[in-house]
Amino acid sequence: MVVIKSYIPSNQTKKVQPMTTFRDSEQQLQNLRELIKNIDYGMFTTVDNDGILHSYPMSKSGNISSDATLWFFTYADSHKVAEVEHYPQVNVSFVSAEQQRFVSISGTSQLVKDRNKMRELWKPELQTWFPKGLDEPNIALLMVNISQVNYWDSVSSFKPQKLQIFQETH
Amino acid sequence: MVVIKSYIPSNQTKKVQPMTTFRDSEQQLQNLRELIKNIDYGMFTTVDNDGILHSYPMSKSGNISSDATLWFFTYADSHKVAEVEHYPQVNVSFVSAEQQRFVSISGTSQLVKDRNKMRELWKPELQTWFPKGLDEPNIALLMVNISQVNYWDSVSSFKPQKLQIFQETH
Repeated sequence: MVVIKSYIPSNQTKKVQPMTTFRDSEQQLQNLRELIKNIDYGMFTTVDNDGILHSYPMSKSGNISSDATLWFFTYADSHKVAEVEHYPQVNVSFVSAEQQRFVSISGTSQLVKDRNKMRELWKPELQTWFPKGLDEPNIALLMVNISQVNYWDSVSSFKPQKLQIFQETH
Repeated sequence: MVVIKSYIPSNQTKKVQPMTTFRDSEQQLQNLRELIKNIDYGMFTTVDNDGILHSYPMSKSGNISSDATLWFFTYADSHKVAEVEHYPQVNVSFVSAEQQRFVSISGTSQLVKDRNKMRELWKPELQTWFPKGLDEPNIALLMVNISQVNYWDSVSSFKPQKLQIFQETH
């Protein structure tokens, strides 16, 4: 679940920052949902064994839950899953050229093989990528625990904006 | 410059792959230029000191040159520059929702402070991000040496496609 922490950027550890309340955090998650509402595909970036960064298009499934997680369907034996299992830090970016909006979500990812969760999140548009649907034996989920969100848009004149969303460390 | 190498994916090191000729490589670069021709902004992903991945919107400047480099304007004192100087591996993704096209470019990046190159690459649209234009004392370039390109689009039914572009190691 999302916990209350003061926000201290790593390069300003000596400055005291105001506390973020739980209500703030919920509000920030709601802001994030609004930001990516009309952007179905994110680019999911991983680091491979050789330290090389790769991006993969992924269609988000369901909404961002109150524990600040994002969900994507995947093949369990795909490159990105091997990469995430080796190095769980990922970034998911959402871009809307039309809306002039750019969103960067940092977090950690893990493979989840929960059939109930898959049934909950399945949507027919995914058939393009998974022709067998939920009958695909190799289908699974990648969960992303969101740790940082930055965005740029025309509304804020493309000045860097930050949402203060924090995850409990498990 | 782009050199001729056989393409051996890291997970298939025992299979012998056909050689890529110089002409192939030029053709692949031309294919890449076509793929991102109408997509001005890329999401430039870096890894910070803590191993966290961040994405930044960046407007590409000029065309991809025959030595397989991409260029972006930046502020020399920005987070992404510090990140690149610490860990030069980056990914730049280009997404066109309209064209249903997703491009992942892996490479290494470095800061370049060449005023002649800046004059060559400057375009008025960059004023949004650099209001002082080339009079900004802190303006610089990030060069990306492209090492791998993958893409997905409706033309190829979203099956993963790879362009075989290789860089000479400096």
